[in-house]
Amino acid sequence: MSGINSGSGPRIDVQQVGDALLGKWKQERRESRRLAEDPRLHTIPGQPMAEHRERVLGQLGILVEEGAIQRAYPAGLGGGDNHGGNIAAFQELVLADPSLQIKSGVQWGLFGAAILHLGTREHHERWLPDVISLALPGAFAMTEIGHGSDVASIGTTATYDPDTEEFEIHTPFAGAWKEFLGNAALHGQAAVVFAQLITRGVNHGVHAFFVPIRTPGGEMLPGVGSEDDGVKGGLNGIDNGRLHFTRVRIPRENLLNRYGDVAPDGTYSSAIESPGRRFFTMIGTLVQGRVSLDGSAVRAMQAALAIAIRYGSERRQFPGASGRETVLLDYGQHQRRLIPRLAQTYAMAFADERLLTVFDEVFSGARDTEENREDLETLAAALKPLSTWAALDTLQEAREACGGAGFMAKNRLVGLRADLDIYVTFEGDNNVLLQLVGKRLLTDYAEQFRGADRAALLRAAASQLGGRVSRFGLHQLGQSIADLGQVARSVESMRSPESQRALLTDRVQTMISEIALALRDAAKGVPKDDKRARATANEEVFNAQQHKLIEAARAHGELLQWEAFTETLERIEDPGSRQVLTWLRDLFGLGLIERHATWYLVSGRISGQRVEAVTAYIDRLIARLRPHALDLVDAFGLTPELLRAEIATGIEEERQDDARAYVEAQVEAGTWPVHEKELRKRGAAAVA
Amino acid sequence: MSGINSGSGPRIDVQQVGDALLGKWKQERRESRRLAEDPRLHTIPGQPMAEHRERVLGQLGILVEEGAIQRAYPAGLGGGDNHGGNIAAFQELVLADPSLQIKSGVQWGLFGAAILHLGTREHHERWLPDVISLALPGAFAMTEIGHGSDVASIGTTATYDPDTEEFEIHTPFAGAWKEFLGNAALHGQAAVVFAQLITRGVNHGVHAFFVPIRTPGGEMLPGVGSEDDGVKGGLNGIDNGRLHFTRVRIPRENLLNRYGDVAPDGTYSSAIESPGRRFFTMIGTLVQGRVSLDGSAVRAMQAALAIAIRYGSERRQFPGASGRETVLLDYGQHQRRLIPRLAQTYAMAFADERLLTVFDEVFSGARDTEENREDLETLAAALKPLSTWAALDTLQEAREACGGAGFMAKNRLVGLRADLDIYVTFEGDNNVLLQLVGKRLLTDYAEQFRGADRAALLRAAASQLGGRVSRFGLHQLGQSIADLGQVARSVESMRSPESQRALLTDRVQTMISEIALALRDAAKGVPKDDKRARATANEEVFNAQQHKLIEAARAHGELLQWEAFTETLERIEDPGSRQVLTWLRDLFGLGLIERHATWYLVSGRISGQRVEAVTAYIDRLIARLRPHALDLVDAFGLTPELLRAEIATGIEEERQDDARAYVEAQVEAGTWPVHEKELRKRGAAAVA
Repeated sequence: MSGINSGSGPRIDVQQVGDALLGKWKQERRESRRLAEDPRLHTIPGQPMAEHRERVLGQLGILVEEGAIQRAYPAGLGGGDNHGGNIAAFQELVLADPSLQIKSGVQWGLFGAAILHLGTREHHERWLPDVISLALPGAFAMTEIGHGSDVASIGTTATYDPDTEEFEIHTPFAGAWKEFLGNAALHGQAAVVFAQLITRGVNHGVHAFFVPIRTPGGEMLPGVGSEDDGVKGGLNGIDNGRLHFTRVRIPRENLLNRYGDVAPDGTYSSAIESPGRRFFTMIGTLVQGRVSLDGSAVRAMQAALAIAIRYGSERRQFPGASGRETVLLDYGQHQRRLIPRLAQTYAMAFADERLLTVFDEVFSGARDTEENREDLETLAAALKPLSTWAALDTLQEAREACGGAGFMAKNRLVGLRADLDIYVTFEGDNNVLLQLVGKRLLTDYAEQFRGADRAALLRAAASQLGGRVSRFGLHQLGQSIADLGQVARSVESMRSPESQRALLTDRVQTMISEIALALRDAAKGVPKDDKRARATANEEVFNAQQHKLIEAARAHGELLQWEAFTETLERIEDPGSRQVLTWLRDLFGLGLIERHATWYLVSGRISGQRVEAVTAYIDRLIARLRPHALDLVDAFGLTPELLRAEIATGIEEERQDDARAYVEAQVEAGTWPVHEKELRKRGAAAVA
Repeated sequence: MSGINSGSGPRIDVQQVGDALLGKWKQERRESRRLAEDPRLHTIPGQPMAEHRERVLGQLGILVEEGAIQRAYPAGLGGGDNHGGNIAAFQELVLADPSLQIKSGVQWGLFGAAILHLGTREHHERWLPDVISLALPGAFAMTEIGHGSDVASIGTTATYDPDTEEFEIHTPFAGAWKEFLGNAALHGQAAVVFAQLITRGVNHGVHAFFVPIRTPGGEMLPGVGSEDDGVKGGLNGIDNGRLHFTRVRIPRENLLNRYGDVAPDGTYSSAIESPGRRFFTMIGTLVQGRVSLDGSAVRAMQAALAIAIRYGSERRQFPGASGRETVLLDYGQHQRRLIPRLAQTYAMAFADERLLTVFDEVFSGARDTEENREDLETLAAALKPLSTWAALDTLQEAREACGGAGFMAKNRLVGLRADLDIYVTFEGDNNVLLQLVGKRLLTDYAEQFRGADRAALLRAAASQLGGRVSRFGLHQLGQSIADLGQVARSVESMRSPESQRALLTDRVQTMISEIALALRDAAKGVPKDDKRARATANEEVFNAQQHKLIEAARAHGELLQWEAFTETLERIEDPGSRQVLTWLRDLFGLGLIERHATWYLVSGRISGQRVEAVTAYIDRLIARLRPHALDLVDAFGLTPELLRAEIATGIEEERQDDARAYVEAQVEAGTWPVHEKELRKRGAAAVA
C-alpha cells in the first residue's frame, strides 16, 4: 500500500488492520459499501431541495431492489433476522448520501421498527410487507415542537371511544404538532404516532398508534394536516415536516399493543405494571438509532481523515531547509491537528464494534435480559454523543487542514459536515444522553453503598479503592488503583496500559463519588415532611452538579473507547500492526490524560512534571506515527468511489510534479529568471 | 427592555451598553444595519446557486445605489475617505447575506482596493469610477491552486517585453491557475492579477497587474480561461472560479506601480530596496480584509447568542420541582454553554473596535508609520483567527442549544455557520496568521536581549520579570508580575483585574521566552559553516515548537481581548452596566485562566486549590449573570429584521402559554384525565 514509511521500522499490515476495523459484520459492511459506490446513490452537491428529495425517494427504491434493507426483519417476512449486520450495513450508507441513509432510517429503522418492536404479529403481517417494499412510506411521529427530549410530556392524545371501538388522535394545541419528521412533508402515507393513551378517563402514558395520513396519490386524509419544514442545515434530501391531527379516528386495533392494550370495552392492560418502566421499555427500542449514528459518525471521521491525510501528505507550502517546499504533514502543527484525531477515530471505531455486539446480543435474543438492555442503552448513550461530536470536529479540522480546497463541495468534507450536524441532537440530544449516563453511573455508585452512611461514602470518595461503578459488562472498574502513587512517580509506567486504565478509571470514579456526595447533602436541614422544599433543594444541587455530571459521563465514554481499543489490540497478531496500533492507542490514552490534565493535577493524581512528560511523549508518539499516517487511513478501506474527493485522488501531487518539472526544465535550458533577492545576495557577496 | 431580572440588583442600561458596542463608527454601523434590514438584500435559504449568484450581483447594484460602498474611496472619486467607517459598515452586512458581504468585499475591498492602494493616480482615474459604480466587476487574482498561504511562491509570470512595451501574463503549469476567486466564474470583466514580475531576465517578485478578462457580454478574452468552482460549503451566492492565462498581453501601464515600476526600456525601479520588504508592503494592504472579517465574526456571534439566549429563556423541557417545566437557561449545563460565550463575544467586540481604530489611524494617514503598520498587521493576525473560530464555535453551540429548531434554515444559525466556515482559512489561514503573530512575539522578545548571552535569556525566562514582549501600542507588558506569588495565595485577589492581567500576561511572556530558548539552542553543535545543516537543525527545532508558538500567539490574542474589554469597561459610566459588565469581564478573564489551568498549574503559577476556587467563582458569576442574559443580548441592538429567526420572535413562549392555558382549562372543567401514575400513587397511599 501507499505510505512514505521508509527504513526498517514496523509497518502495519493494512489488510489485517482493515479487517479489525470492519469487525464481525465485515461481509454486511462490504456489501453495503459496494452499494454505496453506486453513482445512482450519490449526493449531487447543490441539487435543489425538491429534486434531491425525489432522488432520495428513488434511491430508497434501489435499496429495496438490491435487498439492502431487509436484514433486520423477521425471516417470515422475507427478512434476515440479522440485527447487528443490519446496523453495520446501514452505517456504511452515510458515504453514499446521509440523506439517503437517514431517510432509509426513518422508513425501516424508525417507522418500520416501531411496528416491528411495539406492534404484534397481526400488525407485522398487515403492514410490514408494504413497509419493507416501500409501498407504504411512513413517518415516525414522536417528537413535537413543544417536546423533544422529554417524550413523556408530549401533548398529542389518543382517546378511546368504546362506542365505536376507535381511538381519536388529536392535537390539542400548537405545541403538540408533530415536528421534524422525515417523510411527513411529502412521501409518508402513514405514521406511527406517539400519543397519551386515554381510556375511561385515565391517561396511561405514551403509546404508539398506526395512523394513515395520506393517500398514495399524496392527498392528506381528513383531519390530518401537514406542513413542510423547508430548507435545513443539511439532509435536504429528506422531506421533514410537521403533522397535526384534528380528532382523527382510527380502529382500536391500530394501537401497537405489545406493551399495553385496550380491550373493546376500554379496559387498559399491560404486562408491565409500572407506567414508568413501561414507557422506558417502549422508548428503549429507539436505541438502534443511536447505535446506527455512532458508527456512521465513525465512518464520516474516517473519510475526513483519509481525505485530509492524503492531501496533507502531498501538499507542500513554504520553502524548507531541504530546498523543496515542506509537505504539510511534516509541520508540527499539522501533525498535532490530524494524528491525535486519527487515534481517536480508531478508538471510536473499535468502541462502536463493541456497542454493535451488545446490540446484536440483545436484539437477536441471544442475551436479551433487562440488565443487558439497560447496559446497551447506557453504552449507546455514552458513545453516540462522543462520536457524533467528534465527527463534526474531525470533519471541520480536516476541512480547515485542506484550506480553500476543503471548502469545495467536490471534496466532500463540507457536505458531510452539514449533513451530520443534526446527528448531535437527534435520536437523543447529546447533552441529554450524557446526563442519562451520568445518572446511571450515580445509581450504580449508590448501589454499592446502599445503606452506607455518609462516613462510608466519604471514605470511599477519599480512597477510591475497589468497587465497581458500573456493570456494563464492558469493563470492571473493580480494577484496583492503589498503585496510582507509583504511576505518578514514574514516567515510564504512565505509558503502560495498566496505568492509562487506572488513571482514566480513577477520574470517572472520583468525579461520580464527588457528585454523589454533593447530592447526598442536598436536602440537609430541610424538614423531611416538606417534600416541595426538599425537591427544590435537590433540584438546585443537582443543577449545580449538572455540568460536572456530564463531564463525568464523557470521561466514562472515553474510558470505554480506550478499553475497546486496548481489547482489540490484543487480538491483532501481526507484530508490526500491533506495535503501530499500540502507539496509536497510547496516543489516544495519553491524549485523554493531557486533555484532562487540569483535573489530574488539581486532584493530586499526577505532578506537573509528569504532565510535561506526557506532553513530550505525545509529541514523540505523533512523530513516530507520522510515517504510518497514510497506511492507517488506507486501512479504513475507503475506495475512491466511496471517498469521491478530488483532492484525495493524487491530483495535488501531479500538479506539484508538473510545476517542479517545469522549473527544472527552465533551469536546465537557462531560461529560469534569476530572482532579485539572489542578485542582491550575490552583489553583497561580491562587495564583501 | 426585556429580561427576567427581578429584585433590586444592578441592571444594565441597554442603551449605554449598546452604544459602547457600536463604538466610534456608530453612525456608519446604523446606516449599514438599516440597509441590512432591507428584504431585497436577504438570503433566501435553499435558493439554487445560479439564482443566488444573480441575486447577489443585483444586490451589489443596490449597495451602489444606496451609497453604501463609497466610504473608503478618495473624495475626488466620490468617496468618503472614511476607512474605519467603511469597514464598520461592511461588517454589519454579514447579517443581510454573507455572500453579498463577501462579494462586495471582493469587488470593493480587494479588486478596487488593490487598484487604490497598489496603483497610482492614473489607475485610479481610469478604473476606479467604474469599479465603484459596478460597471466594471472584477476579481482579485492572487491565490493559486498551488499556493495559498505562501503568496511569494506563486507561479504566474508577468514578463516584460520592451519591444512592444507590454507585459505577458502567463500561467506556466496547472498549479499556477488562479483559484477560488470571487467574480471569476461569471461576472468579472477584469482582474488584478498577482504575478512574478520578470524583466531583463530578473524576477523582481510578486507584483499586481490589471488584466481585462471578459467582455461586458460575458465572453472570455483571448488567452484567458475560466472554470467554475461550483458548489461550496457556503457563500454560494458568489461565483468563485479559476482563471488561467496563456501569454496574455497587457500594456506596460497596467502594472499597478505604486511600489515598483518598469520603465519602457525594461528597467525595474522601486522606492523600497529590499524585495522582501517590498513584497510585504504590497501584501500589507490586504490587512483590511482581516479587520473586516474580525468584526463580521463578532456580529455573527452576537446574532447566534441573541437567538439561542432568547429561545433558551422561553423554552421549557422536563418538569421541575416548581411544578412547571424548567426553562432551558435555568439548567446549569445550558448556562455553561451560553453565558461564557456571551462574555467572549463582548470581549471580541471591544477588541475589534480597538483593531478598527488602529486600522483607521494607519489608513487615514493620521498615524501611518511603519511601526503602526506592523502593529496593525500583528493585531489583525492575532484577532481574526480567534474571532472567526469563535464564531463557528458559537454558531454551532447556539444551533445545538436550540435542538432541531436550530437546524432549520428559517432560524438562521446553520446558514450563517455554513457561510462563515471559510472565514477561518481565507484572508489568511488562521494557523498561519497565528504563527505570524508568534514570530513577531519572538522577534520582539529577542530584541530585548539583543547581544545578551544564554545566561541572560535563561535568567529572564526563569524570572519573567519586566521587559515588554511587544510594542503593539495596545498594551505594555512592562507590567510587573512580581506579585504573582501573592496572587496565587489569595483567591480574592485573583478576581482583581490586576491579577487577571498579570496571569494572562505572564503566560504569553513565559511561553515565548521558553520557545526562544529552545530555538536559540537549535543549531548548537552544528558547525557554523555548514549552513544547510544549521538550517535543517533550526527548522526541526522550530517545527517542534510550532504548536506551542501558535498557542502562545493565541494566548496573546486573548490577552488583547481581555485588555480591550477592561479598557472599555472603564469608560462605562452607568453603575449598573459597569457592575454587570465587570462580572462579564471577570467571567471572560477567569474563563481563560480556567481553560489554561493546566499551564498555570504545571508552571507553578497557581495551586490546585486556586484552580478549584476559580471554577467555583466562575459558577457563581454565571449564576449571577443569568438574569442579565437577555439584557446583554438586547444590547447588541439586533432588530427582528436583522435576526430573522422564527425562534427569536417569542413564538416558543406563545406556544407554551397556549399549552398551559389548554391544560388549565381542562383541569378547571374537570375533563383533564388523571394519569395512571397518579392513580397508582393514590392507590398505594390508600393501602398504606
